[in-house]
Amino acid sequence: MRAVVLGGNGFIGSHVVDALLANGHKVTVFDRAMERYRDPLPGVDYMLGDFADKMALAEALNGKDVVFHLVSTTFPGTANLDPKADVTSNLIGTLSMIETMTSLGIGRLVYLSSGGTVYGTAPSHPIPEDYPLNPINSYGIVKVAIEHYLEMFRVNHGLQPIAIRAANPFGPRQRHTGVQGVVATFMRKVRDGQPIEIWGDGCVVRDFLHVADLAALCVKAAQSDFCGAVNVGSGQGRSLLELIEALSDVSGQRIAPNFKPGRKIDVPYSVLDITRASKVLGWKPATGFRDGLRETWEWVQQSSA
Amino acid sequence: MRAVVLGGNGFIGSHVVDALLANGHKVTVFDRAMERYRDPLPGVDYMLGDFADKMALAEALNGKDVVFHLVSTTFPGTANLDPKADVTSNLIGTLSMIETMTSLGIGRLVYLSSGGTVYGTAPSHPIPEDYPLNPINSYGIVKVAIEHYLEMFRVNHGLQPIAIRAANPFGPRQRHTGVQGVVATFMRKVRDGQPIEIWGDGCVVRDFLHVADLAALCVKAAQSDFCGAVNVGSGQGRSLLELIEALSDVSGQRIAPNFKPGRKIDVPYSVLDITRASKVLGWKPATGFRDGLRETWEWVQQSSA
Repeated sequence: MRAVVLGGNGFIGSHVVDALLANGHKVTVFDRAMERYRDPLPGVDYMLGDFADKMALAEALNGKDVVFHLVSTTFPGTANLDPKADVTSNLIGTLSMIETMTSLGIGRLVYLSSGGTVYGTAPSHPIPEDYPLNPINSYGIVKVAIEHYLEMFRVNHGLQPIAIRAANPFGPRQRHTGVQGVVATFMRKVRDGQPIEIWGDGCVVRDFLHVADLAALCVKAAQSDFCGAVNVGSGQGRSLLELIEALSDVSGQRIAPNFKPGRKIDVPYSVLDITRASKVLGWKPATGFRDGLRETWEWVQQSSA
Repeated sequence: MRAVVLGGNGFIGSHVVDALLANGHKVTVFDRAMERYRDPLPGVDYMLGDFADKMALAEALNGKDVVFHLVSTTFPGTANLDPKADVTSNLIGTLSMIETMTSLGIGRLVYLSSGGTVYGTAPSHPIPEDYPLNPINSYGIVKVAIEHYLEMFRVNHGLQPIAIRAANPFGPRQRHTGVQGVVATFMRKVRDGQPIEIWGDGCVVRDFLHVADLAALCVKAAQSDFCGAVNVGSGQGRSLLELIEALSDVSGQRIAPNFKPGRKIDVPYSVLDITRASKVLGWKPATGFRDGLRETWEWVQQSSA
């Protein structure tokens, strides 16, 4: 396949690029900046540009078989601060991109959605894809609107979209932005001897997925002809307290978090049912939780960031 | 109540204004133009302006207790042609309006959503409000995104929104735009001796609601403290063939429609479960189908439009 990865120099994107190269595909990366933690990879065509720049985007898409859309200009925890900007940059930006795809005759689109926000306040069991979409923050609302438009463009314009509803990915090269990626944030704090803060009592349950497993699924998704939404997660929920315990183990340090009041925006429980990914894509998570944490911890220790 | 009706000079808006006046409320209308079919009503404060003009809108909202938001710059059948424009004018415009409401300290918002599009391809039974939202056209996608944002602003900013998911309203003063309002379109064609066209076999089932019943519900909604979504319909599904038969009866003319190929965008069956409106608002439709058609037919005959 000739693939273009929008956002291919970001955390998840860089792993998707690795997985594409490992499978012998031809890769173009379109991103605002070069990779933060690695040198450019041989054999990859890098194009720097803004997602809002329609002409630059068209140039990057031209001649490709599949588009991986991993661009998000906002984060789950902060998109609420300016919903209009969220809608403009992500929703309208994606509609522009889809128009470009259809005018260039490109059908296959792998879109990175969000398993942690599209369902909203979820029940206390793993969530299947046909569970009602009731997002409670702007990030999730925009993802849902985009998924609806993907389906509309499938029916009316022959787009072949697959929406990847990812759980909480972690792994090497994740930034510690403070608003996303609790594993990366916690690990840096442990490394730097800083206290770890937990909003709430630590019983919030998340689905921590190794980024290489997510990337492998994205490539399988592109190669399949399935259209629609697919959850991708670890298949298992873990509380923040369990994460802290595993981190203590992996780092060899005793971690005592500071507990702070819970936040309204945090969904209490968010674990994905990954049956469909197994059935329609033949995919299963391959990385054990502690193995993934260990690999990430090694990278965090070597990294200065 | 001091009420402002955004879009109050339109078809539905003009009936909401009537219902507000009949209940003794103080009414301001904000719209792009004056009413098409009536002279200005005594006691109503008319402000002409564009929904996108944030300052004009703030002036109209200032000092009000409740906002009725009935503005839509697009139609179900045509919004697909330019989804970006649909998102910009309706979704971003509504987010701006909500920001203005919160900054002015206005809590109560009655938002006109769309029972015919937010659920998408619906099952063959009346749809309750908790049915999953799977819109298949841009009009419905934007309505769903707005409903999600209403809930987000309720949780985070104290907005008190109620979303009215209306079935297919008909009645006096409905325009015959050709893309919305099949009753109005058909009646004009019968009056003018033109052939009636039906897309598909006429078995498409819709929920035809008299606009005065919808307007009565909107006023009850504003007076209640219920937040969330409420369906409003006639409580009964009728096929286009049944509509044609009733129209033949009411008009005294034998109507033989021309059948054309079905359209992808038409939901085959769309009837709303109106149990919640009865329970939480004490509302029921009061106008019989043929009575409503007869009243509308009389208006269409008198009108030159």
